[in-house]
Amino acid sequence: MTVRAAVAGASGYAGGELLRLLLAHPQVEIGALTGNSNAGQRLGALQPHLLPLADRVLEPTTPEVLAGHDVVFLALPHGQSAAVAEQLGPDVLVVDMGADFRLKDPADWEKFYGSPHAGTWPYGMPELPGARAALEGSKRVAVPGCYPTAVSLALFPAYAAGLAEAEAVIVAASGTSGAGKAPKPHLLGSEVMGSMTPYGVGGGHRHTPEMIQNLSGAAGERVSVSFTPTLAPMPRGILATCTAKAKPGVTAESVRAAYEKAFADEPFVHLLPEGQWPATASVYGSNAVQVQVAYDEAAGRIIAISAIDNLTKGTAGGAVQSMNLALGLDETTGLTTIGVAP
Amino acid sequence: MTVRAAVAGASGYAGGELLRLLLAHPQVEIGALTGNSNAGQRLGALQPHLLPLADRVLEPTTPEVLAGHDVVFLALPHGQSAAVAEQLGPDVLVVDMGADFRLKDPADWEKFYGSPHAGTWPYGMPELPGARAALEGSKRVAVPGCYPTAVSLALFPAYAAGLAEAEAVIVAASGTSGAGKAPKPHLLGSEVMGSMTPYGVGGGHRHTPEMIQNLSGAAGERVSVSFTPTLAPMPRGILATCTAKAKPGVTAESVRAAYEKAFADEPFVHLLPEGQWPATASVYGSNAVQVQVAYDEAAGRIIAISAIDNLTKGTAGGAVQSMNLALGLDETTGLTTIGVAP
Amino acid sequence: MTVRAAVAGASGYAGGELLRLLLAHPQVEIGALTGNSNAGQRLGALQPHLLPLADRVLEPTTPEVLAGHDVVFLALPHGQSAAVAEQLGPDVLVVDMGADFRLKDPADWEKFYGSPHAGTWPYGMPELPGARAALEGSKRVAVPGCYPTAVSLALFPAYAAGLAEAEAVIVAASGTSGAGKAPKPHLLGSEVMGSMTPYGVGGGHRHTPEMIQNLSGAAGERVSVSFTPTLAPMPRGILATCTAKAKPGVTAESVRAAYEKAFADEPFVHLLPEGQWPATASVYGSNAVQVQVAYDEAAGRIIAISAIDNLTKGTAGGAVQSMNLALGLDETTGLTTIGVAP
Amino acid sequence: MTVRAAVAGASGYAGGELLRLLLAHPQVEIGALTGNSNAGQRLGALQPHLLPLADRVLEPTTPEVLAGHDVVFLALPHGQSAAVAEQLGPDVLVVDMGADFRLKDPADWEKFYGSPHAGTWPYGMPELPGARAALEGSKRVAVPGCYPTAVSLALFPAYAAGLAEAEAVIVAASGTSGAGKAPKPHLLGSEVMGSMTPYGVGGGHRHTPEMIQNLSGAAGERVSVSFTPTLAPMPRGILATCTAKAKPGVTAESVRAAYEKAFADEPFVHLLPEGQWPATASVYGSNAVQVQVAYDEAAGRIIAISAIDNLTKGTAGGAVQSMNLALGLDETTGLTTIGVAP
Repeated sequence: MTVRAAVAGASGYAGGELLRLLLAHPQVEIGALTGNSNAGQRLGALQPHLLPLADRVLEPTTPEVLAGHDVVFLALPHGQSAAVAEQLGPDVLVVDMGADFRLKDPADWEKFYGSPHAGTWPYGMPELPGARAALEGSKRVAVPGCYPTAVSLALFPAYAAGLAEAEAVIVAASGTSGAGKAPKPHLLGSEVMGSMTPYGVGGGHRHTPEMIQNLSGAAGERVSVSFTPTLAPMPRGILATCTAKAKPGVTAESVRAAYEKAFADEPFVHLLPEGQWPATASVYGSNAVQVQVAYDEAAGRIIAISAIDNLTKGTAGGAVQSMNLALGLDETTGLTTIGVAP
Repeated sequence: MTVRAAVAGASGYAGGELLRLLLAHPQVEIGALTGNSNAGQRLGALQPHLLPLADRVLEPTTPEVLAGHDVVFLALPHGQSAAVAEQLGPDVLVVDMGADFRLKDPADWEKFYGSPHAGTWPYGMPELPGARAALEGSKRVAVPGCYPTAVSLALFPAYAAGLAEAEAVIVAASGTSGAGKAPKPHLLGSEVMGSMTPYGVGGGHRHTPEMIQNLSGAAGERVSVSFTPTLAPMPRGILATCTAKAKPGVTAESVRAAYEKAFADEPFVHLLPEGQWPATASVYGSNAVQVQVAYDEAAGRIIAISAIDNLTKGTAGGAVQSMNLALGLDETTGLTTIGVAP
Repeated sequence: MTVRAAVAGASGYAGGELLRLLLAHPQVEIGALTGNSNAGQRLGALQPHLLPLADRVLEPTTPEVLAGHDVVFLALPHGQSAAVAEQLGPDVLVVDMGADFRLKDPADWEKFYGSPHAGTWPYGMPELPGARAALEGSKRVAVPGCYPTAVSLALFPAYAAGLAEAEAVIVAASGTSGAGKAPKPHLLGSEVMGSMTPYGVGGGHRHTPEMIQNLSGAAGERVSVSFTPTLAPMPRGILATCTAKAKPGVTAESVRAAYEKAFADEPFVHLLPEGQWPATASVYGSNAVQVQVAYDEAAGRIIAISAIDNLTKGTAGGAVQSMNLALGLDETTGLTTIGVAP
Repeated sequence: MTVRAAVAGASGYAGGELLRLLLAHPQVEIGALTGNSNAGQRLGALQPHLLPLADRVLEPTTPEVLAGHDVVFLALPHGQSAAVAEQLGPDVLVVDMGADFRLKDPADWEKFYGSPHAGTWPYGMPELPGARAALEGSKRVAVPGCYPTAVSLALFPAYAAGLAEAEAVIVAASGTSGAGKAPKPHLLGSEVMGSMTPYGVGGGHRHTPEMIQNLSGAAGERVSVSFTPTLAPMPRGILATCTAKAKPGVTAESVRAAYEKAFADEPFVHLLPEGQWPATASVYGSNAVQVQVAYDEAAGRIIAISAIDNLTKGTAGGAVQSMNLALGLDETTGLTTIGVAP
């Protein structure tokens, strides 16, 4: 089986990473590539690392251009996916890499995005309880956010096993590609190299309700989340440090056992051997998730830490993984767990 | 007044930073410089950025070499300061940049360092309640650890004002110079560039009891601390994200007011205007501390964030600040709040 | 066809990169992995990015361990390959990633390496005139050095076309992985981040005679080389700026034509469109070579610039490319021209 | 003596670095600070590292605002300085940090900048033969470009001593702050971290005629220059690798002697001991220039390498050094040779 895939929004970082993965996917043929302000330009000028596509020219994002594909990936600014998806018909697999269809509660959407809620699609994090089945054969997929991917995979086993109190405290460091390719002064290399700085502090980051949704689903109760994202001087990678107070009776052994069980059959999530800690460099360019967990007896807290590549597992790799499930392919097709290191 | 200063341990990062600051101090004359394995070498080969001292030669760390100075700085491996200090006499100002004399509770020392406790000296963080007075005129100073500096200054106002519950959750990112100059594989540039990774997770980091000591002192009750340090791809800087559950009745205004009061007269700690967040680049090479605080009403937590240069305010700058107080000089002599940026 | 491959020296950067590529090679089965001081350790502790091999244990580098493979890769310190290769028999393909068999002139070897010359094997840079044919079916391959790869591919077309005078001036910047994984103070992250520094200046770098050999071969006359390597604050990548005085009558058009001709059929070397310049980020983790060339009429010089990944095309990718040719496989099997960017 | 200084263009990198230095200058009082698009903003929002000036507000760049100062620094886009300078009167010291008054030959200016030539002012590189005297007491100073500073100081001694042929080949790596603070896609942190890339290749960089002017002046004959700048993944620093063919009879000793003589009395230029090489990290934030030189006998070339901080000695430090000379102050006042390292 060969599927023909279009990418709407091929000039940004998410679109570029998606094309890198699709080029290596044995059952995908790359069809239309679209951009908005960049329509008409050679891809070689915008994504110089994608040599096999250097001479492809970006087209405008129109229904005519996107017609005739088996899969359409949407890597568009938030709020633009619904209008494009509507025109694609129910038989085309639409994989939305934006936020538009992730949240279940319209009030959450409206509070954090300030526009009417477009709906909810099957959520592309197969590792969450029940999520894989909903993706199989689906024609619509909402790809998770990068921070929610790192955080949810680090922490849901503690909640699913009933080990943690319903108040999570999370600090995550992200590489700068998570902030996109639009040039802004604070994202200049001169500013970010040698610097760590937080942003969206105090509950304001748009990924917060998505984390609450995922962790609450695992816990069976509302989990509150204190989330602080920080910008780190590296192009890629998220390191998420996630802690929650342990419930009475929890031991280091019960925590370890819950995590071993949660990830035993997962192809991309690796619980590291005790004593080894995740590093973003180890998952650079790969779809792997490295997880480690500790129980701090003195502080009475569970500390779960994950490392992902924000562009791969956190965006484009997660999208391909869900596409595979939706199309009935092996979930790991075209994806790797091997990082590019050092 | 001119004071003659010796530096024991001049070849490492702490010693090098100290010399950088002492060279700019108008009342200090640099005397003996010692090393151990590096004794006999030109400083220019070891600290090529200290051009005015390039032709100085390191001497061995002996009582004879260290005799005849007004101030002796000890930048030695943990556990070695007591023996050297004993030989220096009670009239010499001894500023210990190691951990040996920081902790009050011998049990904490023995648990985290595994050797007999050497004692407790006045603690070189003048910004803590009561600390400044204890430093004035003292002949012994224990310079705080780098992480405890960033964390305590971020969080003590919340505890001193009775705003926070006694369980703090802290995640901090440090530049690699905090790990020292001894070559180890995981500190190679090839390994650290592009990577974030945690270490000492679960309560094991030696700076944890020092934080607990400081925060408990401010709170008037035992504060438990969950502390996770991470290694960031930058040479210098610590960004500490410190959170604690707010006590009932706390508001954003009461939090802001407590921080404004705590730092109103501090020469080095700057509470940023609302909306601006600390960045390690802004304090690069300076003794400044940038602090910002937020109250996350949804999560019910106070989030206090600080940025310091781990080698300056976190080590050598803190040492000079305390030396100034001990000698009766203006506290800010030879120190700056201006970072080297971008 | 499936070939069974052993890797002697699997714990270093060259060995790790080779394994990353072999894991993705559809016709290779990974056999014995050896180390010296690291024998007995889990590969997961040494190469945490190679998750599928995490539980493999390194064996000692002995003839018994290396026996029974179709291909043996040697990623050993210089001077150790000959002794190991001798014991492997003439029917095993031996691919030496060290310097031992690269140089034709024993005097060059002895001058730069200070030991007796071991011999000369077919040289694994298929893009050089005549080199591809010598590799097809060979049982021995000498993989080129990283700098000579970048430099020779940038400059040989100018010499092969008779456009350049026989004195080349070359300055190259390399990522730190080129200096290996053995911990040394000047390679610490704290030292290399934010710094550019030269080394081996004035003709002393061991890769110099290899460049002279390659360029002289293309020119049909002895080419002198002034080569200055510099260490850049990045883990991977070489950017080589190579210039030579143009011969009389040379024009921008004749230079461009020579380069277009030289690389027209090459799968891995891409002459960029005019106006676009190589960037090491664009070839990160790939076997691609980006080349651009300009003619500076005012200075009368040809400036040819190339970007490679020093660990991929510069070491392990070059090794796999030559292995493919030696085994009669398609030259590009298991290799990509797509970089991991940004 | 206290001089009152205004800075026109205080929001960019050059202006920010100048203010950092002026804040530490014992005889300067900082007066008006101006911006264009940023007029009306707090400096704390634009230059968060300059804490003592955080509450200063930028004013528009008008004659009224700039009136009443002893010194006016112009950190304006190229081509704008002449109009502002005209209005300042002949008794005010005007220090132009742009390119407008650097070049002597109007044809050079017009070719590289495309506008009418404004004139030539005394050139602010006191280390060049004859330059210091022209600066003493001058009311106008043209601050050199960053690359010409690094290149001219590395190479003029070889030309002044008649050791080098009149064709220089130069490759330099610069930190990203040299490209300024205006946000452009290729300067994003995501793009520059981990990447080396050239630009302005083939003689097109605007600093080329300035280098030719300086080296030709030292040589007493027209020196041709092949100059290739590259962008390095660091915020600050220039490493310039400068080579020229040695004239007949040159020896390593004669080269060394020429450099020792040239810099014997220079306060900021340090010829390193043999065997030690310049590193940009060693001069971070300082006005020092590290120089080393080698004679490659096999290639017959002199290789001179310098490291500077592009924002300090390469821009703002050079400006302050010249201001000191123009005002009759000690040349080193307010400047340091001590870098911030590691």
